[in-house]
Amino acid sequence: MLKVIQKADMRKVKINGGFWKEKQNLIKDVTIPYIWRALNDEIEGVARSGAVRNFKIAAGECRGTFYGLVSQDSDLFKWIEAASYALFMENSKELEMLLDRVAELLQKAQQKDGYLNSYYILNGLSHRWDYLKESCQLYCAGHFIEAAVTHYYATGKKNMLDIACRYADCIDRSFGRANGKIRGYDGHAEIELALFRLYECTGESRYRKLGEFFVEERGQKPFFFGEERTNGNIRENLVYELQEEDFSHSQSHLPIRQQKEAKGHAVKAMYFYSAAADEARIEKDESLIRVLENLWQDVTQRKMYLTGAIGSREYGESFSGAYDLPLDLMYGETCASIGLIFWAWRMMLLEEDSRYADVIETALYNGVLCGISQSGDKFFYTNVLEAKPDKYAMRPEYSHIVKERQPWFACPCCPPNIARIILSLQAYIYTFSEDQLCIHQYVNSEIKENGWQCSQTTEYPYEGKVILKLKSERDGAVKLRIPGWCNAYSVQVDGKSCQGEIQQGYLSVFIERGREHEIILYLELKPQKIYAAADAESMQGKAAVMCGPLVYCAEEIDNRMLSRMCLKRNGYLKTDGTAILAEGLFYRNEMKGLYGKQPFRFQSCEIRMIPYFQWNNRGIGSMKTFLTERQEIDRNGYRGEDCG
Amino acid sequence: MLKVIQKADMRKVKINGGFWKEKQNLIKDVTIPYIWRALNDEIEGVARSGAVRNFKIAAGECRGTFYGLVSQDSDLFKWIEAASYALFMENSKELEMLLDRVAELLQKAQQKDGYLNSYYILNGLSHRWDYLKESCQLYCAGHFIEAAVTHYYATGKKNMLDIACRYADCIDRSFGRANGKIRGYDGHAEIELALFRLYECTGESRYRKLGEFFVEERGQKPFFFGEERTNGNIRENLVYELQEEDFSHSQSHLPIRQQKEAKGHAVKAMYFYSAAADEARIEKDESLIRVLENLWQDVTQRKMYLTGAIGSREYGESFSGAYDLPLDLMYGETCASIGLIFWAWRMMLLEEDSRYADVIETALYNGVLCGISQSGDKFFYTNVLEAKPDKYAMRPEYSHIVKERQPWFACPCCPPNIARIILSLQAYIYTFSEDQLCIHQYVNSEIKENGWQCSQTTEYPYEGKVILKLKSERDGAVKLRIPGWCNAYSVQVDGKSCQGEIQQGYLSVFIERGREHEIILYLELKPQKIYAAADAESMQGKAAVMCGPLVYCAEEIDNRMLSRMCLKRNGYLKTDGTAILAEGLFYRNEMKGLYGKQPFRFQSCEIRMIPYFQWNNRGIGSMKTFLTERQEIDRNGYRGEDCG
Repeated sequence: MLKVIQKADMRKVKINGGFWKEKQNLIKDVTIPYIWRALNDEIEGVARSGAVRNFKIAAGECRGTFYGLVSQDSDLFKWIEAASYALFMENSKELEMLLDRVAELLQKAQQKDGYLNSYYILNGLSHRWDYLKESCQLYCAGHFIEAAVTHYYATGKKNMLDIACRYADCIDRSFGRANGKIRGYDGHAEIELALFRLYECTGESRYRKLGEFFVEERGQKPFFFGEERTNGNIRENLVYELQEEDFSHSQSHLPIRQQKEAKGHAVKAMYFYSAAADEARIEKDESLIRVLENLWQDVTQRKMYLTGAIGSREYGESFSGAYDLPLDLMYGETCASIGLIFWAWRMMLLEEDSRYADVIETALYNGVLCGISQSGDKFFYTNVLEAKPDKYAMRPEYSHIVKERQPWFACPCCPPNIARIILSLQAYIYTFSEDQLCIHQYVNSEIKENGWQCSQTTEYPYEGKVILKLKSERDGAVKLRIPGWCNAYSVQVDGKSCQGEIQQGYLSVFIERGREHEIILYLELKPQKIYAAADAESMQGKAAVMCGPLVYCAEEIDNRMLSRMCLKRNGYLKTDGTAILAEGLFYRNEMKGLYGKQPFRFQSCEIRMIPYFQWNNRGIGSMKTFLTERQEIDRNGYRGEDCG
Repeated sequence: MLKVIQKADMRKVKINGGFWKEKQNLIKDVTIPYIWRALNDEIEGVARSGAVRNFKIAAGECRGTFYGLVSQDSDLFKWIEAASYALFMENSKELEMLLDRVAELLQKAQQKDGYLNSYYILNGLSHRWDYLKESCQLYCAGHFIEAAVTHYYATGKKNMLDIACRYADCIDRSFGRANGKIRGYDGHAEIELALFRLYECTGESRYRKLGEFFVEERGQKPFFFGEERTNGNIRENLVYELQEEDFSHSQSHLPIRQQKEAKGHAVKAMYFYSAAADEARIEKDESLIRVLENLWQDVTQRKMYLTGAIGSREYGESFSGAYDLPLDLMYGETCASIGLIFWAWRMMLLEEDSRYADVIETALYNGVLCGISQSGDKFFYTNVLEAKPDKYAMRPEYSHIVKERQPWFACPCCPPNIARIILSLQAYIYTFSEDQLCIHQYVNSEIKENGWQCSQTTEYPYEGKVILKLKSERDGAVKLRIPGWCNAYSVQVDGKSCQGEIQQGYLSVFIERGREHEIILYLELKPQKIYAAADAESMQGKAAVMCGPLVYCAEEIDNRMLSRMCLKRNGYLKTDGTAILAEGLFYRNEMKGLYGKQPFRFQSCEIRMIPYFQWNNRGIGSMKTFLTERQEIDRNGYRGEDCG
């Protein structure tokens, strides 16, 4: 029997300060307005968006033709969702009015039957639904539904939600197994999980059923995408078109229940698996859970970078084979790490196992946060674990990798996605199950819900101490995640040391009804080296340095001739404010020519490392996370000299 | 003052047995007939050539349209040259008649003004000379001139040479600095060195002057290629067309005398530098020699693989920046290593310094020989130093790398080039200067020329002993190259140990006129490790194994889980027949998941290595030349277990 795990109501959780409050403020104050300007083509010198203008044309407010990729609507919708999350943080009449204005625009653009996609409204509705493989219509629709649900929760207003329901109804009338309906699905999963959200918001079971139809229909034979033909002039607006026989790029090669390996576009995969996890939870479908657990193992134990980056190939922005995880010539789209969080969260709602919250933490602090600059207005689309900017100009195979975060993209999916994940972080901290409050993430925050009151005070992730104040109306337990990175911890309950029991990564502490408890959790936070399995050739013989959940990296600006530095095996790791200083070895350059008979030798050096997410905020340069680790004892008694 | 270094007359040198005789027999008996069949479209299942048929159409012997790339003529011409070299080995009436038949065909195809390029003859002569950047006309012409010169030396017949002279005269009337002539040059250098060969064969100084014009004109401003426009329908027959502003792809970015760095297509560069070295020698131009020495340093000390492979990028088949020498995602075209030999030889004719003959040896035994299978009918176009066939299907950036040698190519430049270099090897063994006979390569051979008689008997490269019988009409010296790889040697002259003096890598031994001397040279032949400069990141912390001039490699077929093997620092290297057994360390797989806190550990293993040129003759599998070298002393006293 599945245990019922209940999400916290986002309206009942508040982030009060510390690391994430600062990030949320940055997103709210800088990124949200910045993206709005970008969507309105108001930022000079960056790729034009057209997203708002396309809807203005569709609404009859101005004249013109569609601009951009067929996925362009989704950028606006993700911005609506992110902006709605910002309203959870604090009321802003201005922002609320802006959202109302957007709702009005969308309402004017919406067709009588509920349809709402600017590309097809502007290019002819007769061809809509003709090329689902690449037209991104249902993908965009899904993002709008998500945005509308969030807007409703944030404001209590139904103006956005009503538009979404009308569009969902239009889709419901068009798709399904019944005669006359299209037995198809979108090339980019998203509508599925959005429909489950809409179902959970409205209680309308037809949205749940339509979501299930989309989840289960994908990959059935004959292949839906095998019958489709590209329509009209859409080709120039496509993100790209892969030639493939099995449609695994969109996870459409097999029905979900037969999938054993993560394949294809990483973001599409994450959104699809997320929806399947929703279905498994809603339907209490244990066989589907087993399928997802297998896929989880495949992704996290064979195809994930230490930072939570996934999708290691530029080709199709996709998963590669097991252990094919190059550090430099890689992809690791920001949106894929965000999708991984969506999926991990939904897996956690199936089973309170800390491996899910561990992955959420890893992806949040590393793969996702790396995607945005400290200034809040520059973004990485791909997130390499080793940057070699000198090489990018030499080798076209690196052409998808940029030397620095960019102000915008022709396909700007990542910036608004970063905004919505960071502004919705309060959703990922707490859950309830039976008489338990489960704490998944250590974030300065408070929750009052379900008979529980809880507050966390912490300098996490820079310090390992978390002070919890807890009160419950009923006898119960609080479950505290002991992160996978943590080697030692202690816990004090009301001033007394407590042992507690760890189950599936969570420490349970008994909570007496009515009494205010103070629990202090100490997670030992020391820099440590992390190694990869021997099969992951790119990381063989190398080590990464982590401190708490943060992966660290060495940047050229701090380490002259970084390319010649190794970590010393068993060498020291010291902290110095926010930086880690690692004992290193430096390749001496003693060779006269290019090749010679003299073995390489080392001298000692110190490597300065900063959190990975902070890299590339001080100019262009090379960067490494994993460094070769060596233990060099020279037989001639050479002991190294100072690095000079 | 430049010393005059005189080439040996190929007709006076014979290879008698041993390693290279076997290879020459393979080329003569298998490769030459095989290529002829390929050029006649008689091999099923491989890319069609059209090369012979194009000329048959041009000669009016059959009807049809041009097939293939604009460079297709050159394949036939290189075959003519290789077949002519085969006639040096032994008379073959059959082959001689076949060559006469080809000469007749070409004569019939040749235009009244001497022009002879099948693409333009079949597609309209009015456009010839219109698109020299990519049309390969003068490149093809150069290969024909080289073939005709070789054919003349081999047979004494002028039928081929006369056609070549008429074509050269046609080119001479069309190109030059005079009014009405085209002040241009070919996008692929080759005509230049061919014209110098034709000059040396015929004594006609207009060929020398035309060669000099082409060498000196390249890269002058305004850029000749900047003015050209593609003509007609040639585009579909082009090898490829790079978009570039500076024309460095064809070394046309600067006049040769201003070039400081090797840039662009590696084969084009080699052919161009070779021609410039010819010019420098013929004109005794010391400033041009300095330019070439700089370029030599750049290529061999910053841009060359240990195997003599050059041109590390697939992009434009070109040189990359200094030290950008990836081992797997590389190029290393067979023709580029062949071109490197052409250039090195011409540099050696400027200065008897063993670095040139060392590079010839390296490229011959490794980069070039790797290009052909033991069966003589399969070929590598690119020559990687590390093969990862599992990865090729996963990553499109490896799409130019094949898992095994191929029977033919759409652009089959390499097979006939391998044939002509191996069959012309006798040219690279001896030179004369003043009263000296200089021995550059140790090959079972004899020479009678210039008052000298010399024979070499040796099992080189598998044994280091070379027995020389020498006789000279004049007092003089024999100069013996002491190869760069050699750490110890000894020499006996007429039964007595001799010290001798080494200058620029050559050991001089006095030879008394009229007396037959027996000189026995012992080069210590032991497996040894070779390292790369610290700046070459791809080879950092790694070692390669060489024995004599042969680079060794480890193949998967001999080494299960090769990807987990390292060389042990200070570990043994043993020989076992032709294989080397190296003491190794094997990454244990102790990690439960993908990442963990436990440092990697090793167990001992033995790595079996075979000569690099022999790899991929036993099926598809991974291969490594450079392997990580490690010296692991576990602090817990772990000492390794047998690899199992």
